[in-house]
Amino acid sequence: MNVEETVKAFKAYLGKIKMYREAMSTLSFDGETVAPIGSTKSRAKRAGFFSLEVFNLTTSDEMKAYLDALAPHVDTFDDVLKGEYRLAKKSYEDKTKIPADIVREMGELQEEAAAIWGQARAENDFDKFAPYLKRLIELKKKVIEYRGETSKKPYDLLLDDYEDGMNMEVYDAFFNQLKEAIVPLLKKIKDSNKKIDTRFVHEKVGLEAQKAISKQIATQIGYDLDRGYIAESTHPFCNGSNKYDVRITTRYDEADFFSSFYSVMHECGHAIYEQNISDDIAHQIVGSGASMGIHESQSRFYENILGRSLTFWEVMYAELQTLLPETFDDVTAHQFYEAVNEVKASFIRVEADELTYNLHIIIRYEIERLLFNEDIDVYDLPAIWNQKYEDYLGITPSTNAEGVLQDIHWSFGAFGYFPTYALGSAYAAQIAAHMKKDLDVEALIKAQDFAAIKNWLGEKIHQYGKTYTPNELMKKSFGETFNADYYVNYLTDKYSNLYELTS
Amino acid sequence: MNVEETVKAFKAYLGKIKMYREAMSTLSFDGETVAPIGSTKSRAKRAGFFSLEVFNLTTSDEMKAYLDALAPHVDTFDDVLKGEYRLAKKSYEDKTKIPADIVREMGELQEEAAAIWGQARAENDFDKFAPYLKRLIELKKKVIEYRGETSKKPYDLLLDDYEDGMNMEVYDAFFNQLKEAIVPLLKKIKDSNKKIDTRFVHEKVGLEAQKAISKQIATQIGYDLDRGYIAESTHPFCNGSNKYDVRITTRYDEADFFSSFYSVMHECGHAIYEQNISDDIAHQIVGSGASMGIHESQSRFYENILGRSLTFWEVMYAELQTLLPETFDDVTAHQFYEAVNEVKASFIRVEADELTYNLHIIIRYEIERLLFNEDIDVYDLPAIWNQKYEDYLGITPSTNAEGVLQDIHWSFGAFGYFPTYALGSAYAAQIAAHMKKDLDVEALIKAQDFAAIKNWLGEKIHQYGKTYTPNELMKKSFGETFNADYYVNYLTDKYSNLYELTS
Repeated sequence: MNVEETVKAFKAYLGKIKMYREAMSTLSFDGETVAPIGSTKSRAKRAGFFSLEVFNLTTSDEMKAYLDALAPHVDTFDDVLKGEYRLAKKSYEDKTKIPADIVREMGELQEEAAAIWGQARAENDFDKFAPYLKRLIELKKKVIEYRGETSKKPYDLLLDDYEDGMNMEVYDAFFNQLKEAIVPLLKKIKDSNKKIDTRFVHEKVGLEAQKAISKQIATQIGYDLDRGYIAESTHPFCNGSNKYDVRITTRYDEADFFSSFYSVMHECGHAIYEQNISDDIAHQIVGSGASMGIHESQSRFYENILGRSLTFWEVMYAELQTLLPETFDDVTAHQFYEAVNEVKASFIRVEADELTYNLHIIIRYEIERLLFNEDIDVYDLPAIWNQKYEDYLGITPSTNAEGVLQDIHWSFGAFGYFPTYALGSAYAAQIAAHMKKDLDVEALIKAQDFAAIKNWLGEKIHQYGKTYTPNELMKKSFGETFNADYYVNYLTDKYSNLYELTS
Repeated sequence: MNVEETVKAFKAYLGKIKMYREAMSTLSFDGETVAPIGSTKSRAKRAGFFSLEVFNLTTSDEMKAYLDALAPHVDTFDDVLKGEYRLAKKSYEDKTKIPADIVREMGELQEEAAAIWGQARAENDFDKFAPYLKRLIELKKKVIEYRGETSKKPYDLLLDDYEDGMNMEVYDAFFNQLKEAIVPLLKKIKDSNKKIDTRFVHEKVGLEAQKAISKQIATQIGYDLDRGYIAESTHPFCNGSNKYDVRITTRYDEADFFSSFYSVMHECGHAIYEQNISDDIAHQIVGSGASMGIHESQSRFYENILGRSLTFWEVMYAELQTLLPETFDDVTAHQFYEAVNEVKASFIRVEADELTYNLHIIIRYEIERLLFNEDIDVYDLPAIWNQKYEDYLGITPSTNAEGVLQDIHWSFGAFGYFPTYALGSAYAAQIAAHMKKDLDVEALIKAQDFAAIKNWLGEKIHQYGKTYTPNELMKKSFGETFNADYYVNYLTDKYSNLYELTS
């Protein structure tokens, strides 16, 4: 084969891998929404089987032959092909070190553990989940050992897996900068005389009304329901096979309208990203979001920077009142804006305000460090968790369901994932600052022209998928890499205004 | 490899094929329930891809090597392994004749056509579906040509595909026997003085109540919801990956409680079959229902022989009234029984009474014969369809949605499938007659001991899956093969009594 033919075969081969991943993605969505509980083991077995198929394709002799044959020609590739090559090579190198049976075991365990986690949380029974968590961590450590990168600490490797280029050193610096800003800010807020009226936030809103509002707001901000679907699950998530099929889930609670509303805003941010990847790369490996951090920047942008802004509510509040006649009749837009931004120590990460949210992440980051660097016992987690909540937020969860069992992530082996959430919030502030240079964002929101905002994000971020690494992408679109200053400034400005703080 | 090792490898290889089929089954369920419309093409492509993967596995050199190596030893196999070998061999022989690109094309076309059919039916637009139907038939004919079995007529081949051993000769005899019984019976019913009170059948029943009843009745008759799920779709169906995950769908209409009720009874019959296949063969190729006809015998048993019997309603009617207070307050169990059995010419097959149902099937059978033996134009179908309804049932559909577009089957290339429905009804009567020899069925229904009925069916039919051919299974469990007399007697007795006919 000449180079052109090899490239063609290489692309087709990667397309096949993508096809498997797409199928696995839809099967996973099915598993977390409607699949019967009695099929858990059987589906876990299937997930293990397909993980292994993909693993085999990713690490095959055929893959190696493509990578070797094309290595001398990478410089001549266009950016997309360079991205495909980069991802295939990294995947090959990471995975060839891990025996196939370990991969299958991990696939099966993750599927099973995710189902058990759902039950354990519903039953507030940490001991039910603990043995699975223990096995997940042990298996993860075994995988790290096989990778043999002894110069790196185990947790550094995991951090890098979820965000290319990240490690404890970078996160420590970022989190220290955050703490230095947030801790005094929180103290000022606590000491301020500003009283936020939140009496109405638990007004009952019927489930059907909530569903209708989810659909409407999702559509308005740019989520295309012809290529999407809003389902329900224990923990909200976004699931995209490819740009033509990007689903989100939420959970509805009559007495907690804000919870589902902002879950939907958040997941829509992820979904809008995936839906606006370029058609050209839809069925390629690069055809999904650049990284966890960049992905989270989009969800945080829609949830917080847009969805919790004063301008947004000045415009959208009247609309909400039309959809929910009488519910918030005696509440003004400004009161509403203040209520959705109240700063308050709380137990549930996904329902935390923007400011204390970062503390939830820092707690998880520190616990993961302990799990992977210090070998602490899984059964000590509830106590450690509760102690940290006491230390950082001054509150102690009364149940494990609202404590250590609240997040799905560990149940599918996602250790090192949480820090990308805080990173994403910071990226969101950085991107929003650049957006303001190009667009009159306030005016667009006032005109309800959310399409213009979506299109700008599409041009700067979405279209490229994984073509570039996070740093390359930021550099290309904004001329600079990650910078936490924007986020610190954003938080300081927003909450100083909201709580009428004097500097 | 010695024989034992070859058998082991052969089983593992078939297990892999089964795994693909299970995944495809769940993906298909997803496609017909929640997947977004904009993903139709993309999902069609994926379905084509996986069809091709299974096709490649089924027709590979490795498969041929197993079949050849094991051929001299088949007599020494246990029944399950014999069944596995039989199915693998038939599949290999049928499919090696068809080029891979045709298989992929068919997979893609079926997925796309099924989605278009849904739209066409909703919009009552036959012309939208017609080009897909035309392509499906052309492709099907091409496939038949490739198979090269020139001694058989095309339609005979298709009939045999859906029911091992069936052809036009057998169906002609069966349908003639049916017609000879039904036509005079229908005339007597028409001429009888018996008036059935049906004023209450379109009483409004709220959708939530219907959903609750579906769940309750399904559970009562033996559908295990821990390994099942009741969803909604345009056309009700049963979808089983394996015995641990067997789902059904129905459609709800406030003004048509009976429609969803009997859809659920019907699909539960299919689901109970799949759920009660032996654990030992759950993940093997033989681990699903024996044939279309045998499968339909189980759905028809639960829907009609049980669910439309007088004893059933004498017992269950009080329960229904509790679940639907006031709705049927002035209706007696006997009136209810009569109403659900009213004989009346109607347009929609799935809502037809037991007696005229057979005419709906005979019409489709005759049209399929025309399509495959006479090359009629697809665009003539609405006219032909309507003429046959006039000829056989004395009524003419006013729209194509309630005429030629009503069934999903052709949209996924299932030509030759319909006759198995009538066959299934006849099998159901035959099996029920044998059940009465072993069990006091009336007493069991009166005691609401549906488990005993399910267990008997499990022992005689369900457990074996596809281990035996339909004829082998009937012979093994009942000492005789298909015999339509039972069905003719059942229909004659039931409707003579119901309509108080003198013989």
